[in-house]
Amino acid sequence: MSLSKLKRLTIALAIASNLLPMAPSNRTLADEGMWLFNALPKKQLASKYQFEPSQSWVDHVMLSSVRFNSGGSASFVSSNGLVLTNHHVAADTLFKLSTAEHNYNEDGFLAKTFEEEIPATDLELNQLISIEDVTAKVNEAIKPDMPPADAFKARQAAMAQIEKDSLDKTGLRSDVVTLYGGGRYHLYRYKKYTDVRLVWAPEAASAFFGGDADNFEYPRYCLDVTLFRVYEDGKPAKIDHYLKMDPNGAKDGDLVFVSGNPGRTRRILTSDAVEFQRDTALPRTLNLLRRKEIALQQYGLEGPEQTRRGRDDLFGVQNSRKAYTGMLAGIQDPLFIESKRKNEQDIFNTLKADPKLANLVGAWDTIRDLQNKRREMLLKPASLRTQLAGFAEKIVLMASEDAKPSAQRLREFRDSARQSLEQELFSEVPVYEDLERTLLADELSRLAEDRGGNDPLVKTALAGKSPRNRAAEIIAGTKLASAQARKELAQKGLDGIKNSTDPLVALIRDIEPEYRKIREATEAIDEQERQAYAKVTEAKFAVGGDSVYPDATFTLRLSYGAVSGYESKGKQIPSHTKLGGAFEHEKVHLQKDPWVLPKSWHAAKEKLNPDIPFNFVSTCDIIGGNSGSPVVSRDGAMVGIIFDGNIESLPGDFYYSDKQARSVSVHIAGVLEAMRKIYNAGHLADQMGK
Amino acid sequence: MSLSKLKRLTIALAIASNLLPMAPSNRTLADEGMWLFNALPKKQLASKYQFEPSQSWVDHVMLSSVRFNSGGSASFVSSNGLVLTNHHVAADTLFKLSTAEHNYNEDGFLAKTFEEEIPATDLELNQLISIEDVTAKVNEAIKPDMPPADAFKARQAAMAQIEKDSLDKTGLRSDVVTLYGGGRYHLYRYKKYTDVRLVWAPEAASAFFGGDADNFEYPRYCLDVTLFRVYEDGKPAKIDHYLKMDPNGAKDGDLVFVSGNPGRTRRILTSDAVEFQRDTALPRTLNLLRRKEIALQQYGLEGPEQTRRGRDDLFGVQNSRKAYTGMLAGIQDPLFIESKRKNEQDIFNTLKADPKLANLVGAWDTIRDLQNKRREMLLKPASLRTQLAGFAEKIVLMASEDAKPSAQRLREFRDSARQSLEQELFSEVPVYEDLERTLLADELSRLAEDRGGNDPLVKTALAGKSPRNRAAEIIAGTKLASAQARKELAQKGLDGIKNSTDPLVALIRDIEPEYRKIREATEAIDEQERQAYAKVTEAKFAVGGDSVYPDATFTLRLSYGAVSGYESKGKQIPSHTKLGGAFEHEKVHLQKDPWVLPKSWHAAKEKLNPDIPFNFVSTCDIIGGNSGSPVVSRDGAMVGIIFDGNIESLPGDFYYSDKQARSVSVHIAGVLEAMRKIYNAGHLADQMGK
Repeated sequence: MSLSKLKRLTIALAIASNLLPMAPSNRTLADEGMWLFNALPKKQLASKYQFEPSQSWVDHVMLSSVRFNSGGSASFVSSNGLVLTNHHVAADTLFKLSTAEHNYNEDGFLAKTFEEEIPATDLELNQLISIEDVTAKVNEAIKPDMPPADAFKARQAAMAQIEKDSLDKTGLRSDVVTLYGGGRYHLYRYKKYTDVRLVWAPEAASAFFGGDADNFEYPRYCLDVTLFRVYEDGKPAKIDHYLKMDPNGAKDGDLVFVSGNPGRTRRILTSDAVEFQRDTALPRTLNLLRRKEIALQQYGLEGPEQTRRGRDDLFGVQNSRKAYTGMLAGIQDPLFIESKRKNEQDIFNTLKADPKLANLVGAWDTIRDLQNKRREMLLKPASLRTQLAGFAEKIVLMASEDAKPSAQRLREFRDSARQSLEQELFSEVPVYEDLERTLLADELSRLAEDRGGNDPLVKTALAGKSPRNRAAEIIAGTKLASAQARKELAQKGLDGIKNSTDPLVALIRDIEPEYRKIREATEAIDEQERQAYAKVTEAKFAVGGDSVYPDATFTLRLSYGAVSGYESKGKQIPSHTKLGGAFEHEKVHLQKDPWVLPKSWHAAKEKLNPDIPFNFVSTCDIIGGNSGSPVVSRDGAMVGIIFDGNIESLPGDFYYSDKQARSVSVHIAGVLEAMRKIYNAGHLADQMGK
Repeated sequence: MSLSKLKRLTIALAIASNLLPMAPSNRTLADEGMWLFNALPKKQLASKYQFEPSQSWVDHVMLSSVRFNSGGSASFVSSNGLVLTNHHVAADTLFKLSTAEHNYNEDGFLAKTFEEEIPATDLELNQLISIEDVTAKVNEAIKPDMPPADAFKARQAAMAQIEKDSLDKTGLRSDVVTLYGGGRYHLYRYKKYTDVRLVWAPEAASAFFGGDADNFEYPRYCLDVTLFRVYEDGKPAKIDHYLKMDPNGAKDGDLVFVSGNPGRTRRILTSDAVEFQRDTALPRTLNLLRRKEIALQQYGLEGPEQTRRGRDDLFGVQNSRKAYTGMLAGIQDPLFIESKRKNEQDIFNTLKADPKLANLVGAWDTIRDLQNKRREMLLKPASLRTQLAGFAEKIVLMASEDAKPSAQRLREFRDSARQSLEQELFSEVPVYEDLERTLLADELSRLAEDRGGNDPLVKTALAGKSPRNRAAEIIAGTKLASAQARKELAQKGLDGIKNSTDPLVALIRDIEPEYRKIREATEAIDEQERQAYAKVTEAKFAVGGDSVYPDATFTLRLSYGAVSGYESKGKQIPSHTKLGGAFEHEKVHLQKDPWVLPKSWHAAKEKLNPDIPFNFVSTCDIIGGNSGSPVVSRDGAMVGIIFDGNIESLPGDFYYSDKQARSVSVHIAGVLEAMRKIYNAGHLADQMGK
């Protein structure tokens, strides 16, 4: 369940808590690291695992990997376009394709023919094609004494220009990625697939067996997989690089690799920045998550259809709440911050001993001072987090942004990202009026709580009404639930926004100046941190040598590790579970919700081989966004698919440990057996790996 | 469900959010008011309802009323000691009497004979005997230029002395109650009943039919009642004043009275104080409640026994969360604060026109300035809210307090309250280690979040360990789960505390200085507010004449109103529901949890008269703490029992309205019919009213 949801939420939350800069940790330990495909840890792999990846092995794994732009990972698993990901990565799509009559998320789906495969209107899949270092070009734009806000804009402009030139030249999606917290800039080029169709999904009860209770736990028994297929020109795409299946792989002790898109880690953070997370940012995030969890639970109590409508959001929020709770627990441990402080002291000592490096120490002070400014920004939000308000915010901002040259716009509105943005804004997706009304009322309340009832922005937003009445009025009046209406409004540009009588557009228009003010101030802080973390990176390179990897950035990385159980509460937890164990797990929990296997499983029980491996754990270093990542053998074949991390892995945002932290995968043998024996999907299993 | 739970929680939360001072609202409207038994609104009753209560009517109703010291109201309903209250007031007891084998809360209970009635070890019931005005005596203690902290202590000492003298003289529980926010002090004398036994309770599924979803909603179908019996000298107590039953009462439009113990209203608050509640205190309280709700839900996921163990707390927290959400929504409405400000402006104008009153305006400024000090205190708590930590805190404080004369102690440790305190601390009640561990870990986390990880108190509390590990260590080591151990520790006094190696005692001992510092500062603020609100009260008496009642103080009050439906979302909601409606309500909700009537109801369906009234609403002004209050006719007979308010009544903490706000009762006819036809409790029904 956890990883892509978490990723989705970290992206959403990033607006408030800021996409913090990334940079390498000081020294890699054990199987630590989410490595760049153009800078793999060859020395460690050779010495610890006697493995030397060839360039063709690396290219094959990279080109077989797929990113779900909505947040998650996947891989090509057949020459005719099949893409395997997690059910919980697909859940957003399954949910959007469902109606009161057909609940594909709960009941599953199977296309028996190509014709029955259902287009997922707003999905975009990315295949990484190439990586190019453009650090020098980006840094050229920054003059020594530029004020932070100007430096930020100049840097954005340089990045946007590089992206535009690349797009014009190659026709490929081109993203400049900030690595090492600003220490490096790489240009990533992606082939995009936008005709993506749903092929097969099991029931949620099998994919998410054990529900919120089992989430982040191990042992597990989840068939957390879903198959899509990419199309080109209306036909199944012909794919050159796809993974072969290895149902006999991932034995205890085996070296395995995870190729996916970890969303965000913050291992570079200085201890002052971690303390800001510990004492301010994460507690705030958790309050927000609990608030949304309760609001969605209450909404679901209104009836079974409401339960269905809210479920996808609720699962996502619960998952994030559990993840953030684990994260915060990790950094509340006094031992962690103590060892981090000690480690910093060691670095300072080394730096101070070298006159060429001594001035780098100042970067830590800069970062400390910036945390107070972050706090101020955090406490006065100016965004309303609902689906419709999100559409409105983007369309309103876009109107002014489009009047500027691409390079000077807010980053999400640059030309090179336009196609993806339009896919997001103008696709037909279900909008539930009653859910929107509930969530908007809650958001207006929250705005009033955060800023105080006397704040001018709050007064404007409420327009003299209670949050509930105001939300009811806005949702009754807005037309933005219609994709067509959103498109028409966007096409009218700035005049259209200015003259709009849509109450939601009017509200967002009123909020816009404050939103821009906060965003600008935040981006200036980001820029100052970026420059400071570039120095921290320089210091760490100087101290730590070459064993450094950048923090996660929702771009393709390779992790490695061993299939391996672990000890918990004095008990040895084996690395694998078996298909038959699912029935026992159901029995132990008295077959009570959420431990109820679907009927399809019980019907097929006699046919199933109970000894086939089902889920397994490894020491690979993963984080939210890795959901759906293929787990690959030395031979470059698929042995499993990541779907979770255990509870002990949750502090992974801030540090890695291989003592108890484990990534959790579905074994490919279990997937193939279930497809054939339970789901009548043998025709698809036969296509896989071929 | 709601009211006593809310009361219980408001008492608990009062530590953080402070028992704010009370005083009259400016003008009473409609059926507004929670009136003192020695100052009833005779003029309003006569003019609106042509009713003039005789002194014997007043005495009879007062003496028939009972307060549950644990938070809630009740009444004597037979000459042989039967006491009728709500199931949710009794839930705490039902929960404590239950074990993994016998779940009286879920499954109900029936004593067929006196012998089968089960003693509830820690219950104390209070019957109000007399009221005496002691304002002059209390105010004598305060010298004009005393600093606030000294004035606070002098006032406390004067109150304790009055109580002690009264106790010595009468042997009755004697409490000096602060009314009108410090404008008046009354001495309340109570007869105490401490041998209280459980007689009959229906299943939770009937008492709380519709669960959290239906809570605060109307129409309702809840049999939210439980019968206790008070004993004296080991025999059923002989009761002189008890209520007769009137199953034909509470017809539409009838005048009815509610005699009970509303816990806290804050209608006197100045608009600055309301804004502090709106922007700081209530959002904080809601964050805390949501946090506890999620923690208890997660704990319940561990298994059915955990679900049972956590249920009572969970229901209480959910109830409070819903109540506070409604309260906050009420004061976030800009119209409310606007009209309050306008009303204050009118008062200022009147005051300024009179040279003798003009200086009273300064009280509003004082209160405004004090809100910032309150905020500071609120943000740095020094208490851990768990059952065991609560025991430890009281025992540790008591050891030092007992070294002082009674009049100088913290109020809860004065001699006159000692018996009740010992009943609370030294009764055998179940303590669940795993639940305590979960909640203590959460509380340690919360302490770290509120004060920051670098705070000295947090460092002391965590002792270098993560919150979870520290909680595990403390709960494994403490002996305080045993009533005997608590008693022995308390008996050893200050040396016992100093030398204790119990890790929980040691922790609380370490926190004690900071706790005392905050408490002292808070009490100084309280005293300053008390003096200011006394002036506000004086001003309001001067402007508003004699139609003033004090804010609720968890002491006996009389409310009045009419049985009356109301309009909601364009629909007319009838005042009554009928027994037969429960089955229809179950059907409409597809018999899904929480809309599942117990088997007993289905078994008795054919015997029941479906047309007997079940629940009804009236305009009586109530609030948390009124749960279980008898609803009484003009003739002083029982027609129902309060158990809830509707959603629209939730802002009642801050203002009354009779437009949609309604109190919700079980009709006594429904109670008697269910006892006879469903619960085989005809022998008890026969005793009632006799």
